[in-house]
This record gives sequence, structure tokens and C-alpha cells, in this order.
Amino acid sequence: MAGLHVRSVLVTGANRGIGLGFVQHFLRMPNPPQWIFAGCRDPKGQRAQELQNLASKHPNIIIIPLEVSDPASIKAAAAKVGEHLGGSGLNLLINNAGILKAKSLDNEVLQDMTETYTTNTVGPMLMGQAFLPLLKKAAQGSPGSGLSCSKAAIVNISSIGGSIASAFGWELMQVTSYRCSKAALNMLSKCQSLAYKEHGILCVALHPGWVQTDMGSSAGHAPPVTVDDSVQGMLKVLSSLSEKDTGAYLDWEGNVIPW
Amino acid sequence: MAGLHVRSVLVTGANRGIGLGFVQHFLRMPNPPQWIFAGCRDPKGQRAQELQNLASKHPNIIIIPLEVSDPASIKAAAAKVGEHLGGSGLNLLINNAGILKAKSLDNEVLQDMTETYTTNTVGPMLMGQAFLPLLKKAAQGSPGSGLSCSKAAIVNISSIGGSIASAFGWELMQVTSYRCSKAALNMLSKCQSLAYKEHGILCVALHPGWVQTDMGSSAGHAPPVTVDDSVQGMLKVLSSLSEKDTGAYLDWEGNVIPW
Repeated sequence: MAGLHVRSVLVTGANRGIGLGFVQHFLRMPNPPQWIFAGCRDPKGQRAQELQNLASKHPNIIIIPLEVSDPASIKAAAAKVGEHLGGSGLNLLINNAGILKAKSLDNEVLQDMTETYTTNTVGPMLMGQAFLPLLKKAAQGSPGSGLSCSKAAIVNISSIGGSIASAFGWELMQVTSYRCSKAALNMLSKCQSLAYKEHGILCVALHPGWVQTDMGSSAGHAPPVTVDDSVQGMLKVLSSLSEKDTGAYLDWEGNVIPW
Repeated sequence: MAGLHVRSVLVTGANRGIGLGFVQHFLRMPNPPQWIFAGCRDPKGQRAQELQNLASKHPNIIIIPLEVSDPASIKAAAAKVGEHLGGSGLNLLINNAGILKAKSLDNEVLQDMTETYTTNTVGPMLMGQAFLPLLKKAAQGSPGSGLSCSKAAIVNISSIGGSIASAFGWELMQVTSYRCSKAALNMLSKCQSLAYKEHGILCVALHPGWVQTDMGSSAGHAPPVTVDDSVQGMLKVLSSLSEKDTGAYLDWEGNVIPW
């Protein structure tokens, strides 16, 4: 990643799948970040074991307890990250945590709709608000006037499932609650890009591909993209972004996706 | 409305603004519907007085207590409408009820986000599910194989504020909770169009214009479009829709809006 140099990054949902993949790829960079904050719902749980093992070997990984659907948890996480950073800012916030409930339109219920929305859409909004002071600080502390992911950025992990124009994969998975939450997340990314541009913060929505994770494999599907390829592709895309790209909706290979 | 002939229609949020406008315009048609179901949160309340007066003069208006954020209320409304219709179906469901909280991105909180989503997005989904049997019945009972609003349709009153591509009016009103809910509603409309096409039901999302209602005038703005012009325009658009238009996102003058 010649073009991506971050001193600090926070990844939500970092204990598994794409989130864990980001942590591993940041570690392998020629110049790894000084702080890799790994947000995780239950750091002591069985499903955080791999992240814990990694953190025990790499002191630049800081595991942060974080439930993105809970404003108090987000607030506590922001305070903790701020303490670690001392006076410096946060360069990169990757809102990766997300949920999917495999339902057809006929079977969706109020609770699934709001739970999915709260985690996939409201969470990234609250994270942006809570970490805004640290992102601003990173932008102010970086040289140059343009926007970039090395300077200060919010990356929302969306999905092509949120593309209203394409309705991609409808025959395979209806998942209306997920699709609505991701279309709304795309709108949030656009809003964040407009509101935070003046603070020097770049904002994008990324589709990671159809990836071999627990979520990607739900309902018995066999996704084509490995976590490694997806994360490597996304990091390459992030390294290439500049001011003109803020507010964009791109896939892991850098292609623009129709809203 | 030469092209729009419905025997039955249900309008949500029918006591004020655009919803009340729809009821009035349906009454004035050369061939008014046999049943105009007017959904209203609080039929006994002060804000339903105008609708009550209208209903006292027009026996084809049936006021239905309806809170679209409450699944039980929707279920009860569907049962009541079904009783009135006897064996026949419902031609037209207009999901008009909606809320807007005038906030900037910095001030949005979890509760506003989920409340707005529940009313503006989840409500229309639950309404579609609950009235699907009656909409199907109307489609089965109508001649011809194509789709039309005279046969069976779900019309979701969206907003250009839900257009991610345009981010229309950002400088005037950030209203992220509203924008996200309407982008998600647009996705829902697309999902409904895909799922319900085989049942003979047309589904669209409409932007009513920036209308002189309580919502349109919030935060001290002076909207340019009257309720009358907006509703007349939308009814003209609805009368012109056919199979090729299902899943579309149109404004009150029939223009396609970018997602």
C-alpha cells in the first residue's frame, strides 16, 4: 500500500471476517500503524479468540469493547481511544460492523428492520459523531489541503445489496431489512461527506465484494471472494482516493456502483 | 383523471396535508371511489376535525384508526378494511404518513433515527404485507394482464430528500434521519416492485414536490407547491403508469429522480 500511511486506525467488528482481515493487513504493511484500535462487542468471548491471540503478539493492537448499537458504549470507546492517542488524532475510522438477517420480504418484522438499521446505519452515524473530534485533529495535524484516507477518513462498509438501481442478487436473497439499511448507510455516507468535508475528512461507502465470511456464506451460499483479496482490494482503493472521491460508492476493485 | 379508476383506495396520514388532499381529490373525481379509507392516528383528535367534517358529508369516506409504526394497529386496520370491502379487493394503497425531525447531522440521536425509520420505512413495509391479500384480490378481479394503479398498486410517498445522487437541499436542511429513511423507503419500493409484480401489483415511490404543509414549512421555510397542485400532479402521474414503470422513483410532474 504505497499510498496509504495511517498512524492510527479504528476498525469496528474487528474480531471476525472482513474486520479481522483489515487488522491483519494493517499489521503486514511496511509501515504499520502505531495504533490499530480493534472494536469488538465481546472481547472476552470465544469469537474474539483469534483477535486476542493477534493482540498478544502485536502491542500496536488495542482491543476496544464496542457495541455500535449502544450510544454509551460508543462514547466510552471514543474516550478510551482518545486516551491512548494522547494529543494526536485518529486518521481512519472503518465502520465495518454489520448484521444480516436472512429473510424474505414476506417474513420481515418490525424488530428485524429496526435492529438491522440500528447496527448497520445508526451505528456508523453515532461513530462518526463520537470520533469527529479525533478525526478533525488528525486532519488538522496533516500537511496539505486535499482529502485522503492517510489524512482523515470515514469508510463505511456497505454492500452492493444497498444499490437501489441494481437490486443485485434479489433472486438469491431478498433480505429487505439488510438492503434498506445499506441504502440508508449509503445516504449517511453522502451526508457525512457533505458535512465533514470542511473539516478535512474524506467519507466513502465501500462494497467489499461477496466475501467468504459467516455473513457471506449465510443461507448456504458459496461466495467467490476471499477475505484477503477483498481487504487487499479495498486498501488499494482507499490508498487511491482523493478529494474528488468523497461521497462515492465504490466496490473493492474501485468501480463506481450506481446508487 | 381520465386514466385512474379505482373502486377502493386507502390513504395513510389522511387527516392533514397531502393525505387529506388525496381524499379531497378522490371525492372530486367524475367517478369517485366506492370506498376511500382514510387512515388516521387519532380520529377523535383536534387535528382530524377537517377529515371528520368531510366524512360526515361523504359516506364513501371510512375513517380507519391507524398508527403505521404499530404492527397491531396495522393488523386491526387491515381486518376492518377487509370487512368493509366484503369479498372485493383494495386497488390502491397510498403510504403517505411520514414524519420529519428538523435536525443537523451533529444533533441526530439514536431515538430520532429509529423513530423516523419506523414510521417512514418500516410502516410502509408492514402496510404492504398486511394489505397484500386485498391488493392481490383486486389484481385478480381486474381484467387485463398488465400492471396499473387502477388495478392494484402501492404508492409510497417518498421525497427528493431521499435521493442519494442529488443530496437535494442539503444546504437548507440536513435532516439526516429523514434522508436515510427515505433512501431506505426507495429501496423498499424497489423490493416491493420485485416481490409483488407476480401478484399483479404495481409499486412506485413518488416525490410530492416541496409542498405547503406543516412538514414542508418546518424550520421557517416557504415551500413553492400547493397541496392541490401536488396531489393533482401525482394523480395524473399515477393514471399514466404501466408495467414498465413499476419500481420507479418519480416526482409529482412525472420526472424520473436519480436514486
